[in-house]
Amino acid sequence: MKAEIITIGDELLLGQVIDTNSSWLGQTLNKMGINVHHKSAISDNKNAILQALSEGENRSDVIIITGGLGPTKDDITKATLCEYFDTELILNERVLAFVQSIFEKRNLPMLDSNNMQAMLPKNCGVLWNKNGTAPGMWFYENKTVFISMPGVPFEMKTIFEEEAIPKLKSLFSFPSILHRTLQTCSIGESFLAKKIESIEDALPSYIKLAYLPNIGSVRLRFSAYGENLEALEKELNPIIEAVYESIGEYIYGEGDESLTEVLGVLLKEKNATVSTAESCTGGFLAHQLTSVSGSSAYYMGSIISYDNRIKQEQLNIPKELLETFGAVSEECVTLMAQQIKDKFKTTYGIATSGIAGPTGGSDLKPVGTVWIALATPTHTFAKVFNMGDNRERTILRTSLMAMDLLRKELLQN
Amino acid sequence: MKAEIITIGDELLLGQVIDTNSSWLGQTLNKMGINVHHKSAISDNKNAILQALSEGENRSDVIIITGGLGPTKDDITKATLCEYFDTELILNERVLAFVQSIFEKRNLPMLDSNNMQAMLPKNCGVLWNKNGTAPGMWFYENKTVFISMPGVPFEMKTIFEEEAIPKLKSLFSFPSILHRTLQTCSIGESFLAKKIESIEDALPSYIKLAYLPNIGSVRLRFSAYGENLEALEKELNPIIEAVYESIGEYIYGEGDESLTEVLGVLLKEKNATVSTAESCTGGFLAHQLTSVSGSSAYYMGSIISYDNRIKQEQLNIPKELLETFGAVSEECVTLMAQQIKDKFKTTYGIATSGIAGPTGGSDLKPVGTVWIALATPTHTFAKVFNMGDNRERTILRTSLMAMDLLRKELLQN
Repeated sequence: MKAEIITIGDELLLGQVIDTNSSWLGQTLNKMGINVHHKSAISDNKNAILQALSEGENRSDVIIITGGLGPTKDDITKATLCEYFDTELILNERVLAFVQSIFEKRNLPMLDSNNMQAMLPKNCGVLWNKNGTAPGMWFYENKTVFISMPGVPFEMKTIFEEEAIPKLKSLFSFPSILHRTLQTCSIGESFLAKKIESIEDALPSYIKLAYLPNIGSVRLRFSAYGENLEALEKELNPIIEAVYESIGEYIYGEGDESLTEVLGVLLKEKNATVSTAESCTGGFLAHQLTSVSGSSAYYMGSIISYDNRIKQEQLNIPKELLETFGAVSEECVTLMAQQIKDKFKTTYGIATSGIAGPTGGSDLKPVGTVWIALATPTHTFAKVFNMGDNRERTILRTSLMAMDLLRKELLQN
Repeated sequence: MKAEIITIGDELLLGQVIDTNSSWLGQTLNKMGINVHHKSAISDNKNAILQALSEGENRSDVIIITGGLGPTKDDITKATLCEYFDTELILNERVLAFVQSIFEKRNLPMLDSNNMQAMLPKNCGVLWNKNGTAPGMWFYENKTVFISMPGVPFEMKTIFEEEAIPKLKSLFSFPSILHRTLQTCSIGESFLAKKIESIEDALPSYIKLAYLPNIGSVRLRFSAYGENLEALEKELNPIIEAVYESIGEYIYGEGDESLTEVLGVLLKEKNATVSTAESCTGGFLAHQLTSVSGSSAYYMGSIISYDNRIKQEQLNIPKELLETFGAVSEECVTLMAQQIKDKFKTTYGIATSGIAGPTGGSDLKPVGTVWIALATPTHTFAKVFNMGDNRERTILRTSLMAMDLLRKELLQN
C-alpha cells in the first residue's frame, strides 16, 4: 500500500514554519506498515491543489492532506476538494452544534466564517476533531482514500490516531508488524553498529533494523514483518536478548522513554535524591532533570557556578586548587560534586565543568574538553570527555552523559 | 521567477529526520524575491527522481535538489541526473585533489567509494563544497537551472550562499527587496496586530508585512519591493519609526538578534552582572543566558531551589513565609531575587517561581501561574503572569519574560 502526503499552506513554502506534521505522519504510517513514497508541499492555490490531487491519485492508494481548513479567506482546501470531486458543500448539523458549543464555552460570538466550518463536501465522511473547529474529512473515491485534516499539529495527530487509523484498519488489511525500539546513549552510531554487526548480519530478511540517531543518543528500531504477531515475538525476543548481551550497558530504555524519565523512575524506586553543580552546562542539566513533571520528588536543585568566584564562595573550591589545576579539572569537578551533595543534603551530587567553546580552548584542554563527576554516598569519581567543537551539542551531550553516569550507578547498587 | 525544491532521501519520508533544509531554502529564496511554489520529498529511487525532475522542469525556472550525494550505494542522485540529461560521469581532478586532502588531514584511508565523489556529470558546473566530500552541481539546461547539493544542512547552506546565489545573481536580474525585521516579545501576535493596525492598513501595495510568531516572541518582517533600494529605504524608514512609536517597548532587537544576545550587549555596556534564583524554570533561564559564548563576562551563576528546603537553606526564605504565602507568591519571589543578588554579589538578581504543571495547580493559583522578580541596585519588583497549561511553553515563556524585564530595566537606567 502506497501513501503520500500533501501539505497545503504558503507558510511552509516560505519557510516560516518547519513541517513537523509530515515526519510524524511518516513515522506513524511506517509503523503500521504503510510506505510513504512521496510528499509535496504546495501553496493555498486552487490549481496547485487540483494538480497535486490528480498526480497523487495516479501514484498512491492513500493521500493524506493537511492544512488550508481554517476559517479565513486564504484557506480553500474544502472548496477545491468539492471541485475535484465535482460535488458541493452541505451543512453538517452535528458539526455545527459542536462548533457552536466551543464558542459558547469560550464566551465568544460566532462569526459567519465560523459557521462555514460546518459546511462539508457532500461525499465526505466526518473525521471528528474534538480539539478544534475544523473537522477532518474522509473520501473514498475510485479505490483511493483521501484524508484531509487541519494543519495544527495536535489537532491533526488526534484526528489521525483516533479517527483515520481505525477507518483505514477497517477497510484494508495490514501486515502484522512488531516493533521493538531500544534507546541507547553514550556511544556513537558506528561503534554500536560494529558491536552488533554479527547480530545484524544474521537477521532474517523480514526483520529490519533501523538506526535513528540524535545528538548524544541512538535509537535502534527492530521491525519484524509477518502474518502472526506471536510468532514474530518468539523470533524477535532472542535477537533482542542478544543485543542486550552485547550492548546492554548503553541501553537505557525501550520505546519512547527518555533518559530523564528512566532516571526519575530509578531515583524514586531507590528513594534517592540528587543535586547538581554546573559550570559548562550552565543550567541545561538542571533543565533536563526538571523537564519531567514530578521531578521535584527527587531533584532538589543546583548551584550554577558559572564564574570561578562563585565556585569559591558557594562551593568552597579553594582558590589554590583553581590556580593549580584550573576549573576544568578532575580535582575541581570532584570537589564540586562532593560539595553540592553535602550542601544540598542529597543522596547523589553531579558536577560538570568544561570548555563549551567556541573560545577558551588551549592545546592541553581543547574546546570540547569536559569533566563530569558523580558523588555517591560512598565514593566520588570523575570522567573526562571530548565533546567536539559545537557549543550547543557539547552542552546537550554533557547533560546526557552526566545523567547516564548516575543511571549506571543506580543500577549497580 | 518560480523555484521548487526536491529533497531526496528515505529518511525524510519515514520521518526519521525533520526537514529543516527546505524551510531554510524557502526563507533564503523568499528574501531574494524568488517564490518557492512547490516542494517535494521523494525516496532514493531512480524513477521517482526522474519523474520529479521532469515535473519540476515543466513548472519551475529553478529546481533545487538536496540529498542522495553520499558515497554509499543507496545514494543515486548523480547517476540519475546523468540519465536525465543523457550524459555521463567524468573525473574532476580538482575535486579529487580536494577530497584526497580531506582524507589526508583526518589521517584516514581513501576508499573507492570516496574517489567516486570526484566523478561528476559532464554537463555540470561545480558548486564548491568546502565542508565536505560531496560537491554541489549546477546545470542550466533548456532555460531551467538545476542545483543539486548534499543534504547535510551546514554543507548545503554554505554551498547555496557562497556558490549558488552568486551564480543565480549573475544570470538573472532580481527585484530589489528591502527587508527590516523587528523582534518583539512579551506580547501576542493578535495584540501586536491590533496596535499597529492603522500602520498596516496604510502600507502601499509594494510593502508587505509578515508576522512570524514563535513561543513567547513574534518577528515583524517588512519587505519593500521596487527598483531602487535607496528610494525604498526612504519610504520604509518613517514606517518603521511609526512602528517603534506605537510598540517600541516590545521591540528588543532587529534582524537575527536573539533576546539573550541583546541582553548580553546591554549588560556589558553597563558593566553590570546578573545572577538568577530559579524555581519553576528549573535551570532553563540560566541555560538561555549561558547559551551565548562570552556570557561568563556578566552572568555569574544561579541557585536552582527546586525544593522548598533549598529555598530555606540556600536562599534564606523563612519557613513562615513559605507557609503563609507559598513558594509561588510575590513575597517569596521578591526575597529570592534580593537574596541571590546579595549572595552572588551581582548588580541584578532575577527570580522565578511558578506552577509549570501539568499538576500542582489550585483554584487560587492555577497551572501556569508564574511570579518573576527583579532585584536592582535600588529596588526590587515582582510581576505575576499566567503562562497557560503547557509545561514546556511555560518554562520557555517565563525565561523570555524574565530576560525582557531585565532588558527594560537596563534601558531605563
